[in-house]
Amino acid sequence: MILTVTLNTALDVTYRVPRLLPHASHRVADVAERPGGKGLNVARVLAALGHEVTATGFAGGRTGAAVRELLRAGSPGVVDALAPCAGTTRRTVAVVDAASGDTTQFNEPGPPITAPEWSRFLAGYESLLAGARAVALCGSLPPGVPVGAYALLVRTARAAGVPVLLDTGGEPLRRGVAARPDVIKPNAAELAELTGSRDPLPATRDARRRGARAVVASLGPDGLLAATPEGTWRAAPPRALAGNPTGAGDSAVAGLLSGLAEGLDWPARLARAVALSAATVASPTAGDFDPRTYEEVRGSVRVSAG
Amino acid sequence: MILTVTLNTALDVTYRVPRLLPHASHRVADVAERPGGKGLNVARVLAALGHEVTATGFAGGRTGAAVRELLRAGSPGVVDALAPCAGTTRRTVAVVDAASGDTTQFNEPGPPITAPEWSRFLAGYESLLAGARAVALCGSLPPGVPVGAYALLVRTARAAGVPVLLDTGGEPLRRGVAARPDVIKPNAAELAELTGSRDPLPATRDARRRGARAVVASLGPDGLLAATPEGTWRAAPPRALAGNPTGAGDSAVAGLLSGLAEGLDWPARLARAVALSAATVASPTAGDFDPRTYEEVRGSVRVSAG
Repeated sequence: MILTVTLNTALDVTYRVPRLLPHASHRVADVAERPGGKGLNVARVLAALGHEVTATGFAGGRTGAAVRELLRAGSPGVVDALAPCAGTTRRTVAVVDAASGDTTQFNEPGPPITAPEWSRFLAGYESLLAGARAVALCGSLPPGVPVGAYALLVRTARAAGVPVLLDTGGEPLRRGVAARPDVIKPNAAELAELTGSRDPLPATRDARRRGARAVVASLGPDGLLAATPEGTWRAAPPRALAGNPTGAGDSAVAGLLSGLAEGLDWPARLARAVALSAATVASPTAGDFDPRTYEEVRGSVRVSAG
Repeated sequence: MILTVTLNTALDVTYRVPRLLPHASHRVADVAERPGGKGLNVARVLAALGHEVTATGFAGGRTGAAVRELLRAGSPGVVDALAPCAGTTRRTVAVVDAASGDTTQFNEPGPPITAPEWSRFLAGYESLLAGARAVALCGSLPPGVPVGAYALLVRTARAAGVPVLLDTGGEPLRRGVAARPDVIKPNAAELAELTGSRDPLPATRDARRRGARAVVASLGPDGLLAATPEGTWRAAPPRALAGNPTGAGDSAVAGLLSGLAEGLDWPARLARAVALSAATVASPTAGDFDPRTYEEVRGSVRVSAG
């Protein structure tokens, strides 16, 4: 199976309002809830691609129970191995303005994780690795989890011989990279923060020198730029797709990871990642991918050595 | 005991953000949750005044469970007689802009109530009335509850000999008034919608002709205007109070109802209602009243016959 780690899971709530007016009262026309946090999004896409997936991380309180219930109901292919915590899993509230399509986002702070909870998680993570073909470490850290957490999780995966992909930002990324993950997938802002360079090509190469075996930078509508031991590639969709970019990066991670688990070469992995990203942008539901767009785009992704 | 009815209870969530920026992403610095819906606010204030209170209405789903848990923990004096429903109790999200103090509000739709659930509620309401000295019917109707619901609840209370106060708006108020409640407490907008007049004095008298035995209009910082069988009064705080008006109307209802239950005359009831309103505006927590302001203001409310 493929293991995904989401230390800071979330209950993602989406409100649709006719128009957002600051300091006014709004009747919400439509409420949607789904399990959130990057790693759970990755797990959902992997399951939709037919992979066996196990999701771990933390879930606690009433919202944690909601996340688990919605995961069970909505993604039956994902095995729930989330660890309990005494704190309450955060909510995110996305207010979608129906007139413009723009989203205003409110992110609650994550639950405080205690030292014993973190130790219990680590023990569970080690046993899950025994059955894993690859592992993705995704998203922010809740309070209480040490800032070097991802470095530890990367080293543990490498010691177990499991390929590890890291998708995070800031100091957790900086420390995690130094532990030599197989792949990192920063977006342009995360890559610039890590390397100090806004020029993607030198920045991806710099990130490799910092410890990442391969660096796949997601550049929005421009697709992916990958610097790997086998070479450097750019991969872009055949045409610009209109839609909601929420979750496109998580779908790219799922594409890279599934390709890695299946032993595909880099150009094939990148083509799959770009097609899944494009199909996520084109989906009417934020964070889901549209299977028809995926089938249509996957054969025509432009991958060029650079 | 005093009975309060909240058909459309809510889990009130408050987010504090440094500054609300439409179409941006916000880290929420502080999250607060409390049981909401006007009738639950009234119940909480009545309990704080030392009255025995029972709260009924509907609660369902995960948020309904949260409302009941928070009510039990935060207001031990309130007896929970909420009826279950299969739908999920709504959330309200208030985003408070720390810079300006302004609030942007998002209200989810209430849970759909089925005909059998409404029938079971009515049976429970009738038995609760047997032990009640007064009843308050407060707030909006969830979907599925007939628009004439309050008219039925008013008639049932009158048949049981229990004084009944109605605090709602729109068509539910229009129908409820025709069933001859003892008191209605519209705000200026609700009163204008009911009567077609924006002039409070003729409007309160018109509302009496429509069936309300007494009409107490809440006029914000100007206090209360009461048209009753015993006479007409204006009651105003001794000075303008700065603060958050959320819940001030609910505190006024609690003041009127407690005064009625204790057999106070109209000027004393109005003085108490105005003092509780003012103490709610002055409270640092939205919807709570500040006991020191209440004690300070209650002796100096200006009540004048008009």
